[in-house]
Amino acid sequence: MKSFTEYLVFNTKTRREYINITDTVEKLVKKSGIQEGLCLVNAMHITASVYINDAESGLLQDFDDFLERLAPHAPVLNYRHNRTGEDNGDAHIKRTIMGREVVVAITGGKLDFGPWEQIYYGEFDGGRPKRVLVKIIGE
Amino acid sequence: MKSFTEYLVFNTKTRREYINITDTVEKLVKKSGIQEGLCLVNAMHITASVYINDAESGLLQDFDDFLERLAPHAPVLNYRHNRTGEDNGDAHIKRTIMGREVVVAITGGKLDFGPWEQIYYGEFDGGRPKRVLVKIIGE
Amino acid sequence: MKSFTEYLVFNTKTRREYINITDTVEKLVKKSGIQEGLCLVNAMHITASVYINDAESGLLQDFDDFLERLAPHAPVLNYRHNRTGEDNGDAHIKRTIMGREVVVAITGGKLDFGPWEQIYYGEFDGGRPKRVLVKIIGE
Repeated sequence: MKSFTEYLVFNTKTRREYINITDTVEKLVKKSGIQEGLCLVNAMHITASVYINDAESGLLQDFDDFLERLAPHAPVLNYRHNRTGEDNGDAHIKRTIMGREVVVAITGGKLDFGPWEQIYYGEFDGGRPKRVLVKIIGE
Repeated sequence: MKSFTEYLVFNTKTRREYINITDTVEKLVKKSGIQEGLCLVNAMHITASVYINDAESGLLQDFDDFLERLAPHAPVLNYRHNRTGEDNGDAHIKRTIMGREVVVAITGGKLDFGPWEQIYYGEFDGGRPKRVLVKIIGE
Repeated sequence: MKSFTEYLVFNTKTRREYINITDTVEKLVKKSGIQEGLCLVNAMHITASVYINDAESGLLQDFDDFLERLAPHAPVLNYRHNRTGEDNGDAHIKRTIMGREVVVAITGGKLDFGPWEQIYYGEFDGGRPKRVLVKIIGE
């Protein structure tokens, strides 16, 4: 069994941002040399997500609207978590809805994806460096 | 390490449908010959889910009601995504809530499941053929 | 390839409870002797979750408030599932929002975690023994 580990870093300018990382992950799969296996991609921070969906700008805005409706950023004191001095209570919930991680099959040395699958990094409390882990195991 | 890959195809008659695929996946685990490992089952389309829950008809309707309340299909123009000519903006969000994939342990050649765990394919934009990937790695 | 399997049991006193199981899982990783691989941790019951987020009491209450707002326990007959005699329709939905499982990378014999990542067992229908599966594969 072979394994491969790499850390990506994101530092978004805005509080919330959705970044397509498919090509980056695909390159790491190639670099790993693994032909058959599983690829885990996960946010290492608890106010960010990794998820799979469409690369369509309207949809990204739909997701953002949906998340703001379910767990609005303000008023910040609606979250008990923010009484600790934080203002990111909403980001913890938004990330939970979108998910922490994806596990993707590797077949024939590539991400085994349907036609529209794209891996996204979802940032909900940006403005500082945050990491994503890519771990691949297989043969 | 051994690996096994298979693709299932679903073509539902209705827009939304919930299909129990546990027996199908269990047969593939047997076919793989893998005794100890991990089994990934994921939707390959971004308007469908694979999730684990109960095989109880009332609950399936509860899930459907819940999803329609959170992300109603109509009015379709409430979703920016639908301005591209699509009408499945809601389906992208519904699938995100229910999840893209499950990872299941294989122990002693079987899905290592609790008493009520059942694997479901959740379709949110049916009426055309869509694929599910089953990838098993182990020994 | 090595594999390791263990079952944890939880029997909470209250209906809903959030239990930090990070140390327990970390010990199992050590016990497995696996240096590089993947660790799956999943609820084996369909009214409980395993998820990763912060160990902060205010946030745990925020999650609980959020889940009760989205899928309130009462009135129980709002859920078709409860017409079978159950009263846990809400718990099936709450668990779906929080997720069934996490997959965590193991690097250098340890859970490969960011600074705030903690693994939680989320119970939504407690008062009886329920199991969590830890499955580790790697080398």
